[in-house]
This record gives sequence, C-alpha cells and structure tokens, in this order.
Amino acid sequence: MDLKEIKSPKDLKNMQISEFRRLADQIRFGVLNRTSKIGGHVGPNLGDVEAIIAMHYVFDAPKDKIVIDVSHEAFPHKMLTGRAYGYFTEEGFKEIGEFSSPKESPEYDLFYAGHTSPSIGLAFGLAKARDLKKEKYNVIAFIGDGSLSGGVAFEGLDAAAELNSNFIVIVNDNQMAIAENHGGLYKNLEELRETNGTSENNIFKALGYDYIYVRDANEIKNVIDAFKAVKDYDKPVVVHLNTMKGLGFIPAEEYREEFHSREPYSLGNGALLHPQTSPDYMSITRDYLLKKAKENPELLVISSATPEAFDFMEEQRKQLGNQYVDVAIAEQLGVSTMAGAARGGIKVVYPVVATFLQRAFDQHEQDWAMNNSPATMLVLHSGIRAMNDLTHLGFWDIPMLTAIPDIVYLAPTNVEEYLAMVDWSILQNRYKVAIRVPTYSLEHATEPVDTDYSDLNKFKVVKKGKDVAVIAAGDFFVKGQQVVELLSKEGIDATLINPRFISGVDEDLLQSLKADHKLVVTLEDGSLEGGFGSRVAMEVAKSGMKCLTFGLEKKFVDRYDADALEKANNLQPEQIVAEVLSGLHS
Amino acid sequence: MDLKEIKSPKDLKNMQISEFRRLADQIRFGVLNRTSKIGGHVGPNLGDVEAIIAMHYVFDAPKDKIVIDVSHEAFPHKMLTGRAYGYFTEEGFKEIGEFSSPKESPEYDLFYAGHTSPSIGLAFGLAKARDLKKEKYNVIAFIGDGSLSGGVAFEGLDAAAELNSNFIVIVNDNQMAIAENHGGLYKNLEELRETNGTSENNIFKALGYDYIYVRDANEIKNVIDAFKAVKDYDKPVVVHLNTMKGLGFIPAEEYREEFHSREPYSLGNGALLHPQTSPDYMSITRDYLLKKAKENPELLVISSATPEAFDFMEEQRKQLGNQYVDVAIAEQLGVSTMAGAARGGIKVVYPVVATFLQRAFDQHEQDWAMNNSPATMLVLHSGIRAMNDLTHLGFWDIPMLTAIPDIVYLAPTNVEEYLAMVDWSILQNRYKVAIRVPTYSLEHATEPVDTDYSDLNKFKVVKKGKDVAVIAAGDFFVKGQQVVELLSKEGIDATLINPRFISGVDEDLLQSLKADHKLVVTLEDGSLEGGFGSRVAMEVAKSGMKCLTFGLEKKFVDRYDADALEKANNLQPEQIVAEVLSGLHS
Repeated sequence: MDLKEIKSPKDLKNMQISEFRRLADQIRFGVLNRTSKIGGHVGPNLGDVEAIIAMHYVFDAPKDKIVIDVSHEAFPHKMLTGRAYGYFTEEGFKEIGEFSSPKESPEYDLFYAGHTSPSIGLAFGLAKARDLKKEKYNVIAFIGDGSLSGGVAFEGLDAAAELNSNFIVIVNDNQMAIAENHGGLYKNLEELRETNGTSENNIFKALGYDYIYVRDANEIKNVIDAFKAVKDYDKPVVVHLNTMKGLGFIPAEEYREEFHSREPYSLGNGALLHPQTSPDYMSITRDYLLKKAKENPELLVISSATPEAFDFMEEQRKQLGNQYVDVAIAEQLGVSTMAGAARGGIKVVYPVVATFLQRAFDQHEQDWAMNNSPATMLVLHSGIRAMNDLTHLGFWDIPMLTAIPDIVYLAPTNVEEYLAMVDWSILQNRYKVAIRVPTYSLEHATEPVDTDYSDLNKFKVVKKGKDVAVIAAGDFFVKGQQVVELLSKEGIDATLINPRFISGVDEDLLQSLKADHKLVVTLEDGSLEGGFGSRVAMEVAKSGMKCLTFGLEKKFVDRYDADALEKANNLQPEQIVAEVLSGLHS
Repeated sequence: MDLKEIKSPKDLKNMQISEFRRLADQIRFGVLNRTSKIGGHVGPNLGDVEAIIAMHYVFDAPKDKIVIDVSHEAFPHKMLTGRAYGYFTEEGFKEIGEFSSPKESPEYDLFYAGHTSPSIGLAFGLAKARDLKKEKYNVIAFIGDGSLSGGVAFEGLDAAAELNSNFIVIVNDNQMAIAENHGGLYKNLEELRETNGTSENNIFKALGYDYIYVRDANEIKNVIDAFKAVKDYDKPVVVHLNTMKGLGFIPAEEYREEFHSREPYSLGNGALLHPQTSPDYMSITRDYLLKKAKENPELLVISSATPEAFDFMEEQRKQLGNQYVDVAIAEQLGVSTMAGAARGGIKVVYPVVATFLQRAFDQHEQDWAMNNSPATMLVLHSGIRAMNDLTHLGFWDIPMLTAIPDIVYLAPTNVEEYLAMVDWSILQNRYKVAIRVPTYSLEHATEPVDTDYSDLNKFKVVKKGKDVAVIAAGDFFVKGQQVVELLSKEGIDATLINPRFISGVDEDLLQSLKADHKLVVTLEDGSLEGGFGSRVAMEVAKSGMKCLTFGLEKKFVDRYDADALEKANNLQPEQIVAEVLSGLHS
C-alpha cells in the first residue's frame, strides 16, 4: 500500500511487515520534500519513521491515546493519520503545521504541543481519566531523549510510576537534543545502549518502571515486537528505542545539529538555498559573546540547549570551553544556574528564547530577582516577526518578566544601543538585567548612545514636540518614527520617546507631558495586557490625559502572516495615525 | 559548649563529638520553643538537627558554600550561625525569619529560598563560578526528600552530574513531604533504605553520582563519618541520610503531617492553642469538594503536595480514594495532569497555592490554555493577608494568569458567589477557569448570585451612581463598599461595581461610564503592574477619563504587617477617598 492511499492507521493493519520498508522510504521522502522546500525539522523526523509506523501498526489509535512530545518529530505520525498531502503539495505545506494540532486532527492529535517535555504529564492525566471512567485502552507518551531533561518530564515519570494500570513511555533515543545532550541522564542512556539495556544503572527501573530496550529501532521488526510485548500491559513500562537522527539523508546523518531544523536546502548536498550572509542580531550576539568571554575568563555563557538561537555552533562552543555551559532543555535550571553563578562572583550571560523563558517564572522571581545575583539575560526571538507557530509565540515575555520586582527589562532600538546595554549590564554589580534582543533588520544609531543605564526607568526624549507623545519601545521604535513623520504631514509636531526601560515608567516625564500634550501613544511588539503600555496607561490615566496603547490583543494565533497580524491589531503606521487623529478630535 | 555560646560554626570544631548530644537537645528545644509560641515549621527542624550539626562540624562554612533547600528546615543552621536568639527571645522571634535570609546572614545564607527544589541548581551555579575562578572549596546542596520531586531539582541533579569537581548533594530523607510522598522516586528511596543503600536500583547512581547511605542519621557519629568521607571529594556525590521527622517531640513524631508546620501549640500535648473552629474558605472548599466528588465519580481532585492548603487531611484524602491524586511537589505536573485529565473527558479541580502556581506559567499556557481542557483551578492563599514571607507572596497570580489568553480568572466576593462560580465552572465544558479563592473572613451574599458566568468579562453594577465608579475585585469588594459609603458622606453618589472577571474588562460598561462619571477607581488585592486595574486603565484612558488604580506597588516585602502594607500602598478606605477627592478636583 502506498503512503498516499493510507487514510488512517487502520490501513496499516492489513499490510505485511515486509511492505513497511517501502512505506518508510516514502515517508522519509515526504519529510525531505517538505523541509527542503519550506524548511522545518528534518533529523528528528527521519529518525523515528519506523518507530511511528510500528506504533500505529501495533496500537489502535484513536482508541489508544498517543501523546507525541514537543511534536516536531510527529511528521510520520501526521502522514499516517490522513495528512500525507501536507508533505507533498504546496497547499498541503500551508495547511499542515510543524507541530501536533487538534485542529488538523482532533482524533489523532490530542494536544497542541510544541514546547519540550509535556507528554508524560499529559498522558498521566489521560490515564487518570481513563481509570476513573473505568475504560480500557493504552496510553502512550512518545518522548525523545532530549526532552527527558526537562524537569516536568521527570515529574511525570515520577508520578506515573505509581499507576497500577497501563502506561507506556516510548523513549526515542537518537542521542541528540538540538545540539548534543548534556547531563548524567545521558551518560545513563549511553550505558544502557552500550550494555544492550542490561546495565544495572537504569533510571527508569530506579523509578519503578518495567523496561525494554530495542537495540536497532530503525529495524521495524524489532520495534513491532517490543510494542506487542507492552500492548495492554497493566503497569507502567518504558520502551527505550535506539534510533538514528537524520537516517537516510547523508547530510542529515553527518550534520545532525544543522539538520535538526533547517531553512530550505538542496536535496542534492543539503546546502542552504538562501544562506544568511549579512550580520543579524544573532551573529552580533555571537561575536560579542566570544569577544567578551575572551576578555574576561570569569564570564560564563549559559544556554538551555538552544545555542543555535544565537549562532553558537560547535565551533563557538569549543572556543569558550568551560566558559560555556549547556544545562540541557531546562530553562528553570538555566535561571537557577545564572543566579547561583552570579552569586558565586562571576559575570553571567544567559541568552534564552522568549517563548521558552516562560518556563522559569518561579526561578526568575525566587532564585534571581530577590537574590544578590546581578546577571544578564538576553531574551531572543520575541515579538511578532521571530517565530509564528501557536506554540512558539514570543508575545508574553514583557508581561511575564515585568510582573516581577527587581528585574530591569531593557528594549534596545538599534545595534549600538543593544551592545551598550549589554556592556553596561555585564560591568555593573547591582541589577538583575534582561535585554530584549531586537529581531527586525539591523538599525544603527544616528547619534551616540548612552553607556550608563543605572538611572532606572529614565525615558529618552528623542524629539520634543507637543500635542501627541509617541513612546515606541524596541523594534517598534522605527514604527514610532514613521508615525511621527506621518503626523507631521498632518500638521502635528509630535514628541518621540525611546523608553529603553520596559519594566517601569518615567513618572516625572509622563506627568510633565500633561503641560503641552493631549494624547500619549505607546507602541510595543508584544501582548498589550500586562505589557509596557499598560504601565504607561496606568500612570497617564491618573491625570486624565488620553492614552492609546498599541500592541497585540491577548489572543492565540497560529502560523500567521506578520503583516496581516499587524493590520488586525491596528499596528500599521497609517492605522496608528488614524486612531491618533480620531482620539485627538473626539 | 552551650548553644548560646556558639557564635559561628567555627566554635563547633573545638567541641567533642560527645558534647553534640546535649547541643542537639538545646537546638530541638529552640525549635519547639519558637514554633509553639509563634508557629512555624516543626517536624523538618526536629529531624535534621544532627545532620546540620555534623555539616557545620565537618565542613568549613562560609568558605564552603552550603545551600539549604526550601530552607524551612534551616532552623538548626540558623542557630549555629549566630542566630540562636531567634528561637529563645520575643525580639529574636521577630528579627529572625522562617527561611534562609542573606539579610540575616550574608555569609551563611547565600540565597533567599522558600520555594521547593532550587538548591541543586543554585549550588550548580556556585560550583561553575568556583571552577571558573579556579578556587577550591566544597559546594553543598542540602535537600529534603520531598523537594526532590520538583522538576528543577532533577534538572540540577542531571546537569551537575557532569561536573568534574566537588559537588555534594545531601539528601535529608525523612520520608515525608508536607504530607506523604508520592511517586516512583520514593519507592526507590524506600528500597535504598531497606537495603541499607545497596539496592542496584539507585536513581543517584543511575545519574552518575557516587553514593553513600547513612542508615541512622540521627546518630551524629554516623553523619560525621559520612561527611568526612566526602569532604573535598573531587566529583559529584550524594549522601543519603535517613532521618526522622519530628524526632524528640512525641506529638510531632506521631502526627508528622500536622507538625510539618503548625500554628502555636501546647508544649505539653501538642494541641493547637487557638484551634480554628468556625468555617473559613479552606474548610468550605474542603466540604464542597467532598460533596461534589461523591456526586460525580468522574471528578478528580489534584493536589501538588499541599492538601492541607484546603484542609484535605488524611481522612479526606482517603474518602476520595482514586478521585484524589497528589502529584508531589510539582506544580508543572499539576497543571499538565489537570489538562490531560480534562482532555480525557472527566471533571478536574486543582486547588493550588498562589505563590506556587507561578512555577507552571508554561504549562498554564501550553498544556492548559491552548488546549481543549476545560477544568477548574482554585487559587488559594493569594493577596496581602494570606502569607507574608518574602518567598511566599501571593501578589503575582493576577499578572501571571491574566497574561495568558483563554484563561478565565474569576474573583468571587463572598461565599455564595464563590460556590456558584465553582459550580458553573465544573458544569461547563468550554472554558479554562481559575477562581481566586477569597482569603479574608467570610462574607455572605445579600442578594441572589448569578449562576452562569459564560458571558465573559461582564461586570456587575451593584449600585448605580455617578461621578465616581468604584470597581472592587474579590476580597477588596468590601473595601469598595466602604469607599462608596465614605464618598456618600462627602456628597458623592458613587457607582459600585463587582467585576467578577479579572482576566478581561467589560469594555462597553467602561465606555458607558463616560456619560456621567469623571473618575474610575479600581481596587485589587495584588500587584498593580499587569494586574486587573492596569487593564481597566488601558480601556478608560482611551477616552481620557481619569482612572486611579489601587493595589500593591511592584516590590518585594518581607514579613510585613498587613495593615502597615495597606497603608504604605494607600489602600485604607480613607486614603482611597482622599485620593479620589483630590483626583476629582484637580
């Protein structure tokens, strides 16, 4: 049976096992076809093809409930559950997303899941529901080795071990996170692989699980046998699969980190079709950190398993040696380590992706903000134009970080200001500083930037005007300039302000505006509720000045077009000007 | 040497080991003396006395760095580091707090730490700093068995296993969290205890740690020997201590859960001096859940190891049987389990303490809010008058939960409204609902409460007036009533509004106020920035109406007097009225 004829996993049941080799090839080609053209996760989806075919051959979804962790490795699952067209047609590319999606398939994708490590906890909840309802089916969490380092995965493993009922954890061990794995757990997985699963050091057994090891899990017969052995098993069990990331595409086998997720590439040699050649904020961050670390041997750079987010590939990591630490996919630990190391008397920089930093609210507050741990966090890939998948929105970093006392959150508007802020932050020994790294094209300062930011919450008036004051933060400062320009054409000489600080407001300045301004406008590249503008509005509303806050409505959006999203939120300069004019005259 | 003569751990070095028995007795009496008079953590501090004496006898703090997890078990450490007076004098009771505090002792308490599980990550950061600085000293994380279930503790264990340098984890295993432990990890600890540490199932060894077990760690000689064996050890090692929670005070030995932390009690028989006899929101929640669970066998109650926060003691947990699940000290998993079980088609209620729910921002967003998982979260002990330690402030639940789309956050103002909201939330199948359980004395409805809250963000006008509109949320509704009353004495007929919803605003109502109101006032029992009032201010400021938001300044405060804190934040009704009058006339 060809992949294109498969409508649901039920169709697999009538196939011969010998046919699966060809099916696997077709699935791999689907993975390569799609990712080479529109980009996406390559290696994880080449490695787990046999495991996913076997899973759907042996188990009976949707009756059996499968939760695929992080779900960027769910392409084969999508192809076998009626969505193969998502990998072969232009329209399909658009319709089918990167991660599991109940909207695409409510039966087979039970959850949106794009962050790492939720599968075991979600499956534990499903199992509790099943048991309370006295139903019988298999509950399966399918989780990669990389995802096991996230604390909530451990919390799930720990709790689910107490179930006296069916609970199957499939560990897809391809020996990689995005980059190499870090931590004692991975030494244990290695030991288990090397002993064919017989080592007495076994974290899963230690937690109370039965355990089956599959030495070559890209040989489908082996996986089918293992799954048959645990189907309808009446206690928690771990099936540990040894798979090969990138299998079947030589460049992906060889450059496993580069092919974890990749922009469009040549199916011939794997080369990027549109390689990044000019500097961007990622490469600037990389070069800056390399230089700073060289200058100061007591500077530590932390990553929570996403070094590629600031262009720190193997070469750069090697250069830094023990001045670089990857704490694994564990943002909570990233923040704890930052706070601990800073307290230990060294300089620390922790670049972290906006959508992931929200995993550490508690550590931000408890370990970092309230302690004497001056350190620098660089918040990467925030706002509208960085990532655009429902599960990877960078809209909530401002509400989150600025809810916490004693974290100074800075929003630079250009390269020079960005680097001046990092310079200052690393040099000083008092404040806990987060910096929102811009994500738009590079802007450059047209006049000297400040080098000292210790006078907290001091906004910078870039152009003094009257009637309307435009306060435009970070990447949206350019938008502020455009708005002011458009207003001048309407005969309005507006004030333009670069707030720099988004975790507090310049109360004196805001109150002084009242003298010759009627209306204050805020612009920010993030969610409005709890954001920067909401603080300005609270201050401004005290005196009854009008205030219009521009940013994003608090709403989930998925794989959006950035321009369309801006338009829907009245964020285009012309729209802003129209609202300002209407506000002035109402 | 008497406890009162000990100025620092250095004084222990000259003592004979045989003297420590008496010292331990003195420390235990200090624990009992303080907690019996002002309340606090009893059992944990009775159990680890010998371990802490031994730690300070063998290691050389402050050169060696010790991080005590959660730190409500740090009383003996405090007594040995110059703070014994905190346990014997009235003034000391006030000066010395419940948790580790760099303010009290910057040398010996490196971090504020009151939430569970941070010690290993913080210590890992210290160790990285030490190694970069090429210094030599011992880094020690002292962590209870209960704290090990928090994911970040595992993340820390995992990462620190890779250190090629000294790193000592002391596991103080007293076989209890607050209540009994849950999870496979605890079966493993039990197995290790039963085999005198020799079982081949050993989670610590599996993660790559060397491992030493101490069978009776309330016998100080045993602990000293173990610590001497690992002092200056040059790789990561776990010392597993078997201690007895509550040791030495019979009621605490017998009722270990009740004596984990306790209000003032009799040193004779352990009985509470001021037992709670009248119902409060905790007992109302308990009784409600027992009733609901009986009515609906497909209703699941989840706790993340704090069942006592809603009066669910052993008896109640037993009554619920498999309709109750304790996921261990693991709020991330609490939310995942809630989301998973709701998706599995049952009703779920998760009562969680406000200051702890912030450990699950990511799960709130990813696992719960964006998924089809209608469930009910009860947020307990929020606001000014619930807890008052720096590390346990319930001020940030509103900014946090309301930053996330698709979570409906309700703030009931009295018992009947609270129960009507829970009733509605459990019945409906669409919304993800959090309810801010009141913490003040019981209020009762004076007229029938609504039973349907599916018309989201609809505020309720309780009294229609003009000029000033007072919008008072949750527990602060009473304050709103007082303000309106005081205003009426000033000749102002103010409008009084119960918003009910704090995760959104009633835009139509707010804009309609413009017709006959000059000023809008918001009152909330929480941090202002990102809070309810900031949303109202954003909406109101659009039209240039004045808005005054009352709540807490974004600031860390520690062991405050609630009335004083209210006063400092202008939250007393007279203060509010004064600001309103001034705002009206400026």
